[in-house]
Amino acid sequence: MDIGLIGLGKMGGNMRERLRRAGHTVVGFDRNPDVSDVASLEELVEKLPSPKVVWVMVPAGDPTRQTVSALGDLLGEGDVVVDGGNSRWTDDQRHAGMLKEKSVGFVDCGVSGGVWGLENGYALMYGGDADDVAKVQPAFDALKPEGEFGAVHAGAVGSGHFSKMVHNGIEYAIMQAYAEGWELLEKADLVENVTEVFRSWREGTVIRSWLLDLLVAALDEDPGLSAIRGYADDSGEGRWTVEAGIEHAVPTPAITAALYARFVSRQDDSPAMKAIAAMRNQFGGHAVHTSAPPGGDAPSA
Amino acid sequence: MDIGLIGLGKMGGNMRERLRRAGHTVVGFDRNPDVSDVASLEELVEKLPSPKVVWVMVPAGDPTRQTVSALGDLLGEGDVVVDGGNSRWTDDQRHAGMLKEKSVGFVDCGVSGGVWGLENGYALMYGGDADDVAKVQPAFDALKPEGEFGAVHAGAVGSGHFSKMVHNGIEYAIMQAYAEGWELLEKADLVENVTEVFRSWREGTVIRSWLLDLLVAALDEDPGLSAIRGYADDSGEGRWTVEAGIEHAVPTPAITAALYARFVSRQDDSPAMKAIAAMRNQFGGHAVHTSAPPGGDAPSA
Amino acid sequence: MDIGLIGLGKMGGNMRERLRRAGHTVVGFDRNPDVSDVASLEELVEKLPSPKVVWVMVPAGDPTRQTVSALGDLLGEGDVVVDGGNSRWTDDQRHAGMLKEKSVGFVDCGVSGGVWGLENGYALMYGGDADDVAKVQPAFDALKPEGEFGAVHAGAVGSGHFSKMVHNGIEYAIMQAYAEGWELLEKADLVENVTEVFRSWREGTVIRSWLLDLLVAALDEDPGLSAIRGYADDSGEGRWTVEAGIEHAVPTPAITAALYARFVSRQDDSPAMKAIAAMRNQFGGHAVHTSAPPGGDAPSA
Amino acid sequence: MDIGLIGLGKMGGNMRERLRRAGHTVVGFDRNPDVSDVASLEELVEKLPSPKVVWVMVPAGDPTRQTVSALGDLLGEGDVVVDGGNSRWTDDQRHAGMLKEKSVGFVDCGVSGGVWGLENGYALMYGGDADDVAKVQPAFDALKPEGEFGAVHAGAVGSGHFSKMVHNGIEYAIMQAYAEGWELLEKADLVENVTEVFRSWREGTVIRSWLLDLLVAALDEDPGLSAIRGYADDSGEGRWTVEAGIEHAVPTPAITAALYARFVSRQDDSPAMKAIAAMRNQFGGHAVHTSAPPGGDAPSA
Repeated sequence: MDIGLIGLGKMGGNMRERLRRAGHTVVGFDRNPDVSDVASLEELVEKLPSPKVVWVMVPAGDPTRQTVSALGDLLGEGDVVVDGGNSRWTDDQRHAGMLKEKSVGFVDCGVSGGVWGLENGYALMYGGDADDVAKVQPAFDALKPEGEFGAVHAGAVGSGHFSKMVHNGIEYAIMQAYAEGWELLEKADLVENVTEVFRSWREGTVIRSWLLDLLVAALDEDPGLSAIRGYADDSGEGRWTVEAGIEHAVPTPAITAALYARFVSRQDDSPAMKAIAAMRNQFGGHAVHTSAPPGGDAPSA
Repeated sequence: MDIGLIGLGKMGGNMRERLRRAGHTVVGFDRNPDVSDVASLEELVEKLPSPKVVWVMVPAGDPTRQTVSALGDLLGEGDVVVDGGNSRWTDDQRHAGMLKEKSVGFVDCGVSGGVWGLENGYALMYGGDADDVAKVQPAFDALKPEGEFGAVHAGAVGSGHFSKMVHNGIEYAIMQAYAEGWELLEKADLVENVTEVFRSWREGTVIRSWLLDLLVAALDEDPGLSAIRGYADDSGEGRWTVEAGIEHAVPTPAITAALYARFVSRQDDSPAMKAIAAMRNQFGGHAVHTSAPPGGDAPSA
Repeated sequence: MDIGLIGLGKMGGNMRERLRRAGHTVVGFDRNPDVSDVASLEELVEKLPSPKVVWVMVPAGDPTRQTVSALGDLLGEGDVVVDGGNSRWTDDQRHAGMLKEKSVGFVDCGVSGGVWGLENGYALMYGGDADDVAKVQPAFDALKPEGEFGAVHAGAVGSGHFSKMVHNGIEYAIMQAYAEGWELLEKADLVENVTEVFRSWREGTVIRSWLLDLLVAALDEDPGLSAIRGYADDSGEGRWTVEAGIEHAVPTPAITAALYARFVSRQDDSPAMKAIAAMRNQFGGHAVHTSAPPGGDAPSA
Repeated sequence: MDIGLIGLGKMGGNMRERLRRAGHTVVGFDRNPDVSDVASLEELVEKLPSPKVVWVMVPAGDPTRQTVSALGDLLGEGDVVVDGGNSRWTDDQRHAGMLKEKSVGFVDCGVSGGVWGLENGYALMYGGDADDVAKVQPAFDALKPEGEFGAVHAGAVGSGHFSKMVHNGIEYAIMQAYAEGWELLEKADLVENVTEVFRSWREGTVIRSWLLDLLVAALDEDPGLSAIRGYADDSGEGRWTVEAGIEHAVPTPAITAALYARFVSRQDDSPAMKAIAAMRNQFGGHAVHTSAPPGGDAPSA
């Protein structure tokens, strides 16, 4: 099939490559002319046969909103826009509604796979009307991993990004699980070589997984992770998962714990813990720490 | 090799079978004469050539303590006892010390694999002196999964059970992660077929794992899990992981959240939430619920 | 001063009474003619001298939105609307903007005090321009508790409700703290009379507080809280506090734990724990519980 | 009454003073001769009339164990030892048993009050036989706050320290509640003067408490708490509360969150978060942070 692809960064660039390897004709556009196939959105749309399928792969939020809006002006009846970025599912309804006024279809697609997707395929969760999905199906088939799993039509518009968001929320908590176990094994000082214990878990255990494989790879590259700071960004899906849980009164304590651990990891000093230290000082006369870091665990209460 | 195996339940019985398939001679003992090879511990010990290796596979706590103690009276210099049960690592030091007085070696071994171990092999994490471990090595090699992973000599006595305990703590949090995601997808009512979304995650995603495969199998057997009560036991390792974290000042918020969710799942009514309801009633006049379950979410604050 | 008061429920009715006791002239309106002083909003507005001050005390969300909107049509330059309900702070900006087009001022005011406010006074946190606040000041002075504390001009529009929201978030976690302690004392079965321990804490301890006094009062009314179900609603402010924390990357683990405990308290069965039970059954052959409640803690892992 | 008091530090010294002000005869002993009334434990015991009452006020753990053991050798039938330190309740049974062999009674007493106790009185929770408690009662009456609350005979030996431990667990979570609220108000930047909001809460609100009063005092001394590091020790009772909860399958999520926040506050870098960063780098190519602190929130996922 012919497909337009907007956004040729780390993800988009690899996806163009995987689509081409599968024999599809991809017209790619990026602000960076070095990687772009065309000079403008207009040229991209012009080069596609009808019904035109355009896959948007730009950052969530304003960039995606502006791109979808611009495509609304350029596309027409029967064409389809796919948002493959990390948009919040609540954006999808708005985008679909905006495009529907011009009889343009909309499909939201959560994409997982990271830097491994080019070779292994991308896991895809998409939402939208069956007619619209059908027009994109050849691209989905090319992008997804080989084998029977890795792609799902999750439901109506928004269900793809919602599924991907929950996927990422789960991912947060699974990473946190391994991380807590790793810190405990390192600190307890009972196990001689923690990396070897983790490596052994790759077969036969209940907790074998791809993330475990990746953690072992990282431990091999940097034993003890001594070169890495304990600083973790978050990209939005973890926050949205917790918010969606709150909206539906679904408790998500493990996912939330993982999210909060990331928040804390980015603080140079914790205002909350200043308040704790201040209160302890007031009622118990416990000394507070000031500028210099402490030499060790203080003995007081 | 020749090996004695005490405890022929779900785990021990399958391990005897796997050891025999690998050509080893297993003398099994169990209280249940229908499955036991010998009539007594004495007979078991008698039948083994020296140095005698005896693998204990009985419940943690008193049963293991009594069995190790009895073996201390029956075994002699150069023999080795392996505790393959779910003992707390702090028991291992005591057992090793008790046996050392009689020049009997001790190896602790955490075993993972559940009902799948017979065919797939058991993941093994063991701790002890190299000499003692060497005497058990042929059994380890037979029990472990094929391939390069699945077994590790973690360190000194106690390190095997400690590693297995952390493994189980991680397992608690990973299960909780999937469970939270599943509940959210079911409640949000945006995805048409939640099982299909979980199934799609089995390839290409960051969260693919064996536990995910198992959850999909369970969802296939009982769509919506309508026949299952939300009731989960815990076996000790989760509690010990949190306690070990506390001992070493290692925060384990995700593992702890998973443990507490299990506690709550077993309560018919929550005393803590009675206290919350009572306080709200006192300051705000909010109605409390009495015996009958509520018809729905009450509107008040 | 003269003041209009819309919404004469449990809170509004008592506030009218406290304002009148302080010598103010209150024109109250409620849908319920039995408690209303006037027959319509129009009549209420008519009866007030300029600059007219109208205090809205209706449920947050649509009722407040509609009332503010209606007042926008009835009021004019220099008049002031006070929203004393439990609105989300994000609504305040919208309401203020809507009224500003008609030169009507807006003040948001978080009100705490529950059924005790009539006698003890209401804690007030308000936000808005100094000019607008000045017009309401006599009412604030009448409603607030005697003494030097209990009222604050927190900042611009929205800051009053935001402060009240955080107040409630803190309240959730404090209640949860006492509730956890109470459950533990009851379950541990070491203390003979838990109520007496709580009562003793009312003086001299670090944790003495008004909520503690209330909990003791509840325990006196219903020893063991045997007549109360462990079921707790939540009113919105707890959720918003967690959401605001997420927006600002501020971890709120204790407040969040309190919120989630309320969610769980309202579930007849936990979908997440069904998933946990299903996974345990798959890998370990652990029996699942079906319809009937279990007779006791099962021994398995 | 006559009473021996061992340990004249910050707490013990003030307690001696409060007992003397009430007319009691206190024989104090401390390793520091500058504050000690006698030169040795032997002299202290000698100076007391029978039945002798000796109050131990030294650090929990070894110091208390050694002191109780030494008193066992010096005291005789009908005498009573009071442990007023922060011992774990499980130590009490051991101490009581050791003394019982010599017909010496034992009372455990949790003491709250900090630096305020001298003037305001100390909250007391004690456990032991009625006969033993009766011998100490005059001292309890002198130490406790005036008014009807502040002292309780909680039950048998151990119940006093258990009650105090739960008190401290609750205290952890309440402090955490205020701390989270304070950080959120500071970060959200909607409220002009956060200290004034906290001050206003001291009357009329649901969350008024002594800890709130103390936090306001701290904020007055150091606006913004700019001179204090966010570093908080923990003294044992928080850990024991969580452990006791685990033993009795009582979930304590808010108390646990407070404990873990203190653990994190003392880490220069989080090993767990290193592992998170390492995994993210492996699957997504997300850059990790190395030595230098980041300039700001990175945009990536």
